[in-house]
Amino acid sequence: MSGTPAVAVFASGGGTNLQSLLDTFGSDGSPDPAARIALVVSDRPGIGALERAERAGVATAVVPPKEYESKDAFAAALLAVLDEHGIDLIALAGYLKLVPEAVVQKYRGRIINIHPGPLPTFGGTGMWGHHVHEAVLKAGVAVSGPTIHFVDERFDTGPIIAQWPVPVRDDDTADTLAARVLKYEHRLYPAVLRALARGEIVWLEGQRVRRGPFGGRTAGFRLADEESSLASVQPAWSESGL
Amino acid sequence: MSGTPAVAVFASGGGTNLQSLLDTFGSDGSPDPAARIALVVSDRPGIGALERAERAGVATAVVPPKEYESKDAFAAALLAVLDEHGIDLIALAGYLKLVPEAVVQKYRGRIINIHPGPLPTFGGTGMWGHHVHEAVLKAGVAVSGPTIHFVDERFDTGPIIAQWPVPVRDDDTADTLAARVLKYEHRLYPAVLRALARGEIVWLEGQRVRRGPFGGRTAGFRLADEESSLASVQPAWSESGL
Repeated sequence: MSGTPAVAVFASGGGTNLQSLLDTFGSDGSPDPAARIALVVSDRPGIGALERAERAGVATAVVPPKEYESKDAFAAALLAVLDEHGIDLIALAGYLKLVPEAVVQKYRGRIINIHPGPLPTFGGTGMWGHHVHEAVLKAGVAVSGPTIHFVDERFDTGPIIAQWPVPVRDDDTADTLAARVLKYEHRLYPAVLRALARGEIVWLEGQRVRRGPFGGRTAGFRLADEESSLASVQPAWSESGL
Repeated sequence: MSGTPAVAVFASGGGTNLQSLLDTFGSDGSPDPAARIALVVSDRPGIGALERAERAGVATAVVPPKEYESKDAFAAALLAVLDEHGIDLIALAGYLKLVPEAVVQKYRGRIINIHPGPLPTFGGTGMWGHHVHEAVLKAGVAVSGPTIHFVDERFDTGPIIAQWPVPVRDDDTADTLAARVLKYEHRLYPAVLRALARGEIVWLEGQRVRRGPFGGRTAGFRLADEESSLASVQPAWSESGL
């Protein structure tokens, strides 16, 4: 990549994660010059993500799979629009279609996705949006949180780059949990895209990733990693029930 | 439970988690009067956990399953020794045998276990000790950490009470990850046992638990939950790669 890496964001919905990337990098790498959002690709017209792109002055492309006679033709159309805009990196943000193999292979190690729950447990076909949070609540885990991973040829199976632990509360519904997790999706995705654009994150082989700044050092872990804080928190547990 | 709840700790190994409970509560509820460690049960003689109990002046019982002609006889032997010591709560700490159904049923909601990795993903028969950490590393997750759960009739399937997120580092081996997770096991288990003894944690039904102080409020989450800290950490990601 030369100059400021050009990022294409793939979306199928309202695009709040897209917005967090637009707010961070803009269409020209300001305020953060690590990357620029050069294109938003949607699988259907009329979605919020396209409106957000237009408001930010970012080019858009609607590429509906069903309008192509074959997967190869769909892949070719995607590759053509990515080439046209000189795309270096791809960030999936609520994109519900499987990315064609030809695109995954050309961008291997340069295409990432954000998932609203812990992988590998709460992922796979049909596990998106509220379905993820409902499954997390049904399983009764105490820890949820977004997972960012490299994209491979299947849903949610690519190597994990970063996860942010988010608490599940006793009184959570899928909606309250989704809202809490989303807050950290919006913090984590720009930070990971920045590190990827800077070459700090590398897909080594198989499931092995050099995570760089996310190698067990994300904000969510700071406190758990500090001896001193543990002693200071212990009394809160026993005194106030916090 | 009347007075200071009497706890039996079941162990099969060196007993470092037992030690964290002994250090917190002692055999008589000092320094922390929430509970007292009244008995250590082992499935075999000559293990470190028994030595730790003896050093702490805690009664011990060795109840080897294979010395009984039936599961029922084994269960009866366990129940007899638990009754003899007036045990209110049971904490499994590296106990590798399946607890007999009769014991689980009598102590339902009063028997807990600590697992060295995230459940439900990294649990089940044969998934103990280094096997857990090797599976976590193979899966490539960025978040591991101990899980404390109520014990039901199977391995690692009871409802989750608390989890502490612990980072997985790029250069971790099963040993380095085990050591990092163990540090938080030793903090989390006494805190959960304290809350259980105080009636703050209740197994409601199915997988539903009233977690009380652990309802998404453990120390590991404090920072991730604070808006201000996110802004303060973001620059560290982008500046120093921390």
